[in-house]
Amino acid sequence: MKESMINVIVTAGGTSEPIDNVRRIANTGTGRLGSLIAEELAADAMVGHIFYVCAKDSFRPVSEKAVCVEIESVSDLQAAVTELMEKNEIHGIIHSMAVSDYTVRSVTTVESLVDFLANDTTNDMKEKILKGMDQTDIRSGGGKLSSQMKSPLLLLEPTPKIISMFRKMAPQAVIVGFKLLSNVSKENLFDTAYRLLIKNDCDYVLANDAKEIDADHHHAYLLDREKNSQTFDTKTEIAKGIADIVLREVKRK
Amino acid sequence: MKESMINVIVTAGGTSEPIDNVRRIANTGTGRLGSLIAEELAADAMVGHIFYVCAKDSFRPVSEKAVCVEIESVSDLQAAVTELMEKNEIHGIIHSMAVSDYTVRSVTTVESLVDFLANDTTNDMKEKILKGMDQTDIRSGGGKLSSQMKSPLLLLEPTPKIISMFRKMAPQAVIVGFKLLSNVSKENLFDTAYRLLIKNDCDYVLANDAKEIDADHHHAYLLDREKNSQTFDTKTEIAKGIADIVLREVKRK
Repeated sequence: MKESMINVIVTAGGTSEPIDNVRRIANTGTGRLGSLIAEELAADAMVGHIFYVCAKDSFRPVSEKAVCVEIESVSDLQAAVTELMEKNEIHGIIHSMAVSDYTVRSVTTVESLVDFLANDTTNDMKEKILKGMDQTDIRSGGGKLSSQMKSPLLLLEPTPKIISMFRKMAPQAVIVGFKLLSNVSKENLFDTAYRLLIKNDCDYVLANDAKEIDADHHHAYLLDREKNSQTFDTKTEIAKGIADIVLREVKRK
Repeated sequence: MKESMINVIVTAGGTSEPIDNVRRIANTGTGRLGSLIAEELAADAMVGHIFYVCAKDSFRPVSEKAVCVEIESVSDLQAAVTELMEKNEIHGIIHSMAVSDYTVRSVTTVESLVDFLANDTTNDMKEKILKGMDQTDIRSGGGKLSSQMKSPLLLLEPTPKIISMFRKMAPQAVIVGFKLLSNVSKENLFDTAYRLLIKNDCDYVLANDAKEIDADHHHAYLLDREKNSQTFDTKTEIAKGIADIVLREVKRK
């Protein structure tokens, strides 16, 4: 690979967070769009490597320029992108992966929580419930939870926002974020997507609504920092649109 | 297909239960063992169809005798096997699928639950928490939950046990159940697996422990109604062992 070659990270598919060693909370991204974007990028002669960070069951690009890095959880994702950016000069980051917003903080049962509440003297109810959830956590190191519980209760907590880390890791990179909402107005979708762009210092954000995605169509808007937008109707159009704009920006820099 | 042909249902991979329209609680079965069992069955000239009920991301058999039926949730699984047994004479059922023990009853936040508890007059604390979880459920019809919650709380409830339905649906079938435990004694594993066999009127049960499964090895015991056992060390051995014993039994009947 020549020094002047363009390297891009594409994240694709969905992450998942463990409940125990056989159950996970999974985001249902398939990686289809991400793999198409990777193929479009690979078609450009100036592109050296595409580091394709994806889940085990994700669609993958077939191009030989694609280097697949398999991950499961958000912390795996963080470790993978950190290492990639330490070891390689990265010119573009296309973050299409559906990243878990929540990980599992504790697992208990309503019955155990009620027992705890009856015997604990904490006054603040929120604090008391959180304490009870943590102290009655029934996960043991790496085991499998019983299948005989009546009322299992899972307490979740937010995961770190990986997208917020990219700009610091790769100040010069062209960064594309993704925002998927479900059944909202176009105005709401644009506002939410644009806030994500600004907050995380992205160059572009792909805004889409689950209600406008089916087997044959995928309606989406690519917004830039000036809130200009391009509209696409299929995954192939989206993939071409994103690859073109990212490569044009990278070459211009 | 001739009348005298043998038809078998093989379930494989893992089921998953929706949290919202982009997040699921998934069992992490890969379907590798199930697909090998299906291939071993397909190699027998007497076998007509193998109805292979699996998750979207599951390994699948390549044999032309295999008819794949894709499912996600436990209720999908129930519908699929019910329909298969209504429409076909089924001689064997090999239930290797990792079926979700729990589905999502409600999703709320600790904050909303605390608000509810402060204003509700139910005396029994367990009843009060369950009522609170249900009444503060924030899932709306088919939407996507916010990614901005501080302390999401998921209440689960048991799913129907599909394995318990097979004997009634197919009184003459040879039925093989599966029991996966994690890090238990051989005695505990045998006892638990045998209870599953008796309770669900299976002919055989494959008992295995997650600690004895890795990329190259898969230690497992096949127990019969008399508690006799065969031991296997790889997925290929397990697949051959199960296919042989099921076909022998079916042909003997």
